Amino acid sequence: MNRGQPAPGLFPTGMFEEQLRACVTWPGAPASLVTAAEYALLAGGKRLRPALAWHACVAAGGEGPASLLPGAAVEMVHAFSLVHDDLPAIDNDDIRRGRPTLHRHAGEAMAILAGDALLAGAFDCLLRWPASWREPGTSAETATLRLSLLEDLSRATAAMIQGQVWDTMGGLPEGLSPTERLKLIHSNKTGALLAAACRMGARVACGGGVTPAATLNAIGKFGETIGLMFQVVDDLIDATQTPDHAGKRTGKDEAAGKLTYPGVLGIEPTRAEIGRLRAEAFDAISPLGSRAEGLRSMVDYFAERTK
Amino acid sequence: MNRGQPAPGLFPTGMFEEQLRACVTWPGAPASLVTAAEYALLAGGKRLRPALAWHACVAAGGEGPASLLPGAAVEMVHAFSLVHDDLPAIDNDDIRRGRPTLHRHAGEAMAILAGDALLAGAFDCLLRWPASWREPGTSAETATLRLSLLEDLSRATAAMIQGQVWDTMGGLPEGLSPTERLKLIHSNKTGALLAAACRMGARVACGGGVTPAATLNAIGKFGETIGLMFQVVDDLIDATQTPDHAGKRTGKDEAAGKLTYPGVLGIEPTRAEIGRLRAEAFDAISPLGSRAEGLRSMVDYFAERTK
Repeated sequence: MNRGQPAPGLFPTGMFEEQLRACVTWPGAPASLVTAAEYALLAGGKRLRPALAWHACVAAGGEGPASLLPGAAVEMVHAFSLVHDDLPAIDNDDIRRGRPTLHRHAGEAMAILAGDALLAGAFDCLLRWPASWREPGTSAETATLRLSLLEDLSRATAAMIQGQVWDTMGGLPEGLSPTERLKLIHSNKTGALLAAACRMGARVACGGGVTPAATLNAIGKFGETIGLMFQVVDDLIDATQTPDHAGKRTGKDEAAGKLTYPGVLGIEPTRAEIGRLRAEAFDAISPLGSRAEGLRSMVDYFAERTK
Repeated sequence: MNRGQPAPGLFPTGMFEEQLRACVTWPGAPASLVTAAEYALLAGGKRLRPALAWHACVAAGGEGPASLLPGAAVEMVHAFSLVHDDLPAIDNDDIRRGRPTLHRHAGEAMAILAGDALLAGAFDCLLRWPASWREPGTSAETATLRLSLLEDLSRATAAMIQGQVWDTMGGLPEGLSPTERLKLIHSNKTGALLAAACRMGARVACGGGVTPAATLNAIGKFGETIGLMFQVVDDLIDATQTPDHAGKRTGKDEAAGKLTYPGVLGIEPTRAEIGRLRAEAFDAISPLGSRAEGLRSMVDYFAERTK
């Protein structure tokens, strides 16, 4: 299984790519900046965040295409974070998805600025389309829905940056057990954005109307659980697989002395923790019935990554 | 005249500082990240953007305090841009406002992440306060006003990053004269955010209602003019003053081979250009009468910086 590619048929990758391309169409911007942003954003990748937004939207009773824009906005924030995290001063990674990282390809200055532009661009996307909130006579629901999406994104971005600080520089609150420390790092660094993708997908399910709170809460809880599970799986891959199989450098967490689930719990208890989180994720969305089949496939897809 | 300090009495610096401090109060965030953000944001500085928002709000018929939040959001984006621009890979500046730059003080990784957090935090501020858009029964006007503020900020941030790319890496559109190139760089890199401060201040003047288009356009035009003028003045300071007088390293534009107004036009024609922009700024707000006195003082304050 090629881990840089989405599972065929599980989600409409072509539509995601088209939406992402539209999101880095910046008329009048320097060509070099657009090229750098495209290099970072359109280089493949699993598109888990757009896929979660899509399936969350369907699970909440909506049509998948309504989720394309919020899904793309979340993916842009993800791309920004990879570009900055790869920088020499932070993770100092030279290779990402089998190609030179952006700072190796286009220089460090451009990587900093293109990362910044992707972050600002994510918010811009949610404001540009659809433009209906700007029309006279727009409803309060239309406008507040858009504000809620922006708020989900902004909170998750802040959490992600905080998680990255804890992960690379320490300074966690006192008195936490190693497992609590791990959970705090992971749920912020990776989980928050995955959870935001779910919540934002669910929000746009009702065509400008308000998604019922119970649905939003169920999908929000699902998102937090699967977000944490994703990172636990990633830790396990890093600890147990060859670089070729994982599609990226492995063993680097241990080499960097980072806290990981396999390091703290051991390999088998980590597998058990993944099973527990998987069951918890299924539980969260059980009230949604068959509409949530796509979200369930995502859980399996996440869990399968370790095999 | 100490150029790092605001003119006494011209604007309520104490209120600005209080609002800025609230904007980097991030409950639960790593203390090191908050400290770094505070170092960058609360280190003094002229607070021109909050001041422009304040006076634009008053000029549009509002009460100054309504502008504190949008003014602070713009200032956060400004602070983010200074932190990233100072990085070794970009301008490689060691000193800012008489102290080590953030990457010299707290390390490059923290400077990158704290810059990111300030950028995300600027959007977050505009979403957090006031929370009225989240209440049931909120009016469409309240919600669209907030979206408009976010859009002003997001567009100006994108323009600023684009201007920085052109300034440091070139790649401007073909066929522009040196003056046109300069204007494009300056109006994006510096002008867009100053203009956004004016426009956002004017937007919040009517307590949740809509500011008349004529007022918004007049103040928007004023903002673009004064934004360009600010950078022309900066070029002149860099070309003609000692570091001690300017409060920062001077002569560096010439040393870096950057396009500047004095370099392209000569010193005296640059002074004349400043005079022309000053008259244009006054013209733009003449329909606003005496309410715009504060904005006029800002023009004079900007122009006085060269003396």
